Amino acid sequence: MTYVLHYAPDNASLIVRLALLELGQPFRTLLVDRRARQQDSAAYRRLNPAGLIPVLETPDGPVSETAAVLLWLVDRHGALGPGVGEHERAAFLKWLFFASNTLHADLRMVFYPGQYAPGAEDALHAGVTARMRRHYGLLDALCGSVPWFGGSTLSVLDLYVATTLRWAALYAPGGAWFRLADFPALEALAARVEARPSMVQAIAAEGLGPLPLTAPRPCMPPEGSAL
Amino acid sequence: MTYVLHYAPDNASLIVRLALLELGQPFRTLLVDRRARQQDSAAYRRLNPAGLIPVLETPDGPVSETAAVLLWLVDRHGALGPGVGEHERAAFLKWLFFASNTLHADLRMVFYPGQYAPGAEDALHAGVTARMRRHYGLLDALCGSVPWFGGSTLSVLDLYVATTLRWAALYAPGGAWFRLADFPALEALAARVEARPSMVQAIAAEGLGPLPLTAPRPCMPPEGSAL
Repeated sequence: MTYVLHYAPDNASLIVRLALLELGQPFRTLLVDRRARQQDSAAYRRLNPAGLIPVLETPDGPVSETAAVLLWLVDRHGALGPGVGEHERAAFLKWLFFASNTLHADLRMVFYPGQYAPGAEDALHAGVTARMRRHYGLLDALCGSVPWFGGSTLSVLDLYVATTLRWAALYAPGGAWFRLADFPALEALAARVEARPSMVQAIAAEGLGPLPLTAPRPCMPPEGSAL
Repeated sequence: MTYVLHYAPDNASLIVRLALLELGQPFRTLLVDRRARQQDSAAYRRLNPAGLIPVLETPDGPVSETAAVLLWLVDRHGALGPGVGEHERAAFLKWLFFASNTLHADLRMVFYPGQYAPGAEDALHAGVTARMRRHYGLLDALCGSVPWFGGSTLSVLDLYVATTLRWAALYAPGGAWFRLADFPALEALAARVEARPSMVQAIAAEGLGPLPLTAPRPCMPPEGSAL
């Protein structure tokens, strides 16, 4: 079967799109209309009871949680990251989970503070953006020191972290809490990921603008809405 | 080499301890003295730059992030969860990441609200505990419907989610936001995990009391402190 990616423009599904393009795997996309809150429909909740985007339909059923999809793709296609049994797998897993449960989880609170601390969004924003800077500091120190992050061979962790840099910049107007230049290794990674043919295709599909990672602008998707 | 588990009593390292015991793998433990903030020492940060507990030292180097350690153990020992290539692996990964990046990440905010929303701890507590109830609702619905969660064969996801039930109850005085009985499938899982020989050993090692999951009391560890 062909993979089916349930996506919304400039949502976390973008990372899975990039991975599928890098793997050269054919896939169809299905827009999840967030304006109509389609992610809350019974049909979508059957695919992902948590109601989040993305879902990737696979021969082994629907997979969701961005990092779970990425890891499953690595293992199925034997690319974009160390496989089971490789020495580097251990550290790769550590940082993939860190990206998921710390970096991405905190970034989500920057986007949707009211889901976590209703009435106290500003206090949460202050606390979490300070954490985010520390997370990026750790990742900047790691980047380029290992083969599977900022190394010579692209990995899903490269795609994952690089894409969050876009969202961090978009949600830090005027560089209020995040400036890519403060993290030089990540900035170099962003430039490399941005230049890949996979990103050129993603830009066209999701309206991401010419420099989606190093100088991001809000998306202007050809269909659907990010918000 | 023998595994080395860097732990603190009743910390997330407990889940890894249970997994190692279930796998029958020999391991040594090293107490991380949280009173002395040993997790912030240069030596510990070399093992885990994020400074969190646990770290498991393995032949492939140190691994941290609870779920990363669990998944690495599943793959290395071929037990406690579906392996790469198995049909069930896809959904298992989804829920393992959910447990890590949603359930555990939110539970951490219940413990340490000041790290996220300084000055607005109560608002964060209200928002996140409402989320936690939804997360447990999803897990309760899943539990017993798949072989790798609440099924006949124990998995690391069983150990992971069951242990969080202890912490949720301890951090919900008087059942303020969490009552195990509201989640009957999880309650049954907790009773099963609690009765296993691995838990008997963990109780002795970390002072968890007679019913650590179904009727938890604060730990009284034979050495070290949980706080």
